[in-house]
Amino acid sequence: MAIKRYNPQKILCDASEHNGVLYTAGQVADDLSQDVRGQTEQVLKAIDDVLAQAGTDKSKILSANIWVSDIRNREFMNKVWLAWVDPENLPARATVEAKLADPRMLVEISVICAK
Amino acid sequence: MAIKRYNPQKILCDASEHNGVLYTAGQVADDLSQDVRGQTEQVLKAIDDVLAQAGTDKSKILSANIWVSDIRNREFMNKVWLAWVDPENLPARATVEAKLADPRMLVEISVICAK
Amino acid sequence: MAIKRYNPQKILCDASEHNGVLYTAGQVADDLSQDVRGQTEQVLKAIDDVLAQAGTDKSKILSANIWVSDIRNREFMNKVWLAWVDPENLPARATVEAKLADPRMLVEISVICAK
Repeated sequence: MAIKRYNPQKILCDASEHNGVLYTAGQVADDLSQDVRGQTEQVLKAIDDVLAQAGTDKSKILSANIWVSDIRNREFMNKVWLAWVDPENLPARATVEAKLADPRMLVEISVICAK
Repeated sequence: MAIKRYNPQKILCDASEHNGVLYTAGQVADDLSQDVRGQTEQVLKAIDDVLAQAGTDKSKILSANIWVSDIRNREFMNKVWLAWVDPENLPARATVEAKLADPRMLVEISVICAK
Repeated sequence: MAIKRYNPQKILCDASEHNGVLYTAGQVADDLSQDVRGQTEQVLKAIDDVLAQAGTDKSKILSANIWVSDIRNREFMNKVWLAWVDPENLPARATVEAKLADPRMLVEISVICAK
């Protein structure tokens, strides 16, 4: 069974595909000057992009892991998530607090998505 | 390949099923006044319930992610886990500390389970 | 569809296999006296070992979750990762900070790997 890898970089790729399932890397914002709302929008856009590249979309997300650098930002992240997620196809999700690679990073999200 | 979603709520569902694999949301306790033992029992009961709803059970869990809000509670969580888990069918597991959505939440668990 | 479990211990197993996908437990170092570089080498060796046991290898890793007890150790962990990972087959990855089971544990890694 073939494995397809999207956007390989130096140490990881953006997503791996195997047997009709896509596993994305933890996506973070490019513009870290933005607040948690702006960063969440960027992260979800990055997820949209890699899912589109693989020929799938957010309606087929199975589960998401979300890390926020301050759990009190969860409600702001959730508002952006709620405006983005497909209400007819809500995924499973777990959200916890964790420090991220750069102190300016406020949110990181990885998903497992069907094709 | 169809995706089935269990107990969709406002922003997520309790579990998504695809190609014979179930991905649960991070489950937390309903009664947050309980200690880590009581909360772990509630969380594992919630997992039992959603697995049963999907027609599977804990003997088919492939992996679990466990977050405890204080890593020193890991041993108490483990005692409840050990009394619950199927000794003939132990899953892979990772347990780390993380602050959770509510400061009273002491443990959160998500699993990936075969059908 | 059969589930195969590798190295069951008291409360978990090292990896579960189902439908051509292997889910490993969070692997940690045995010798916790070593620094993050030494511990990362031990962890990646433990992953190599369980993948080999299951008849697969690091070129087929789909995704990795990495927890470092101090996010500032990420760069040292990354150097060891970069020397280890298959550059032609880079997996998706998410790396966050989390306190681990023992205060001397500096890094923990779980992977999902195809066979």
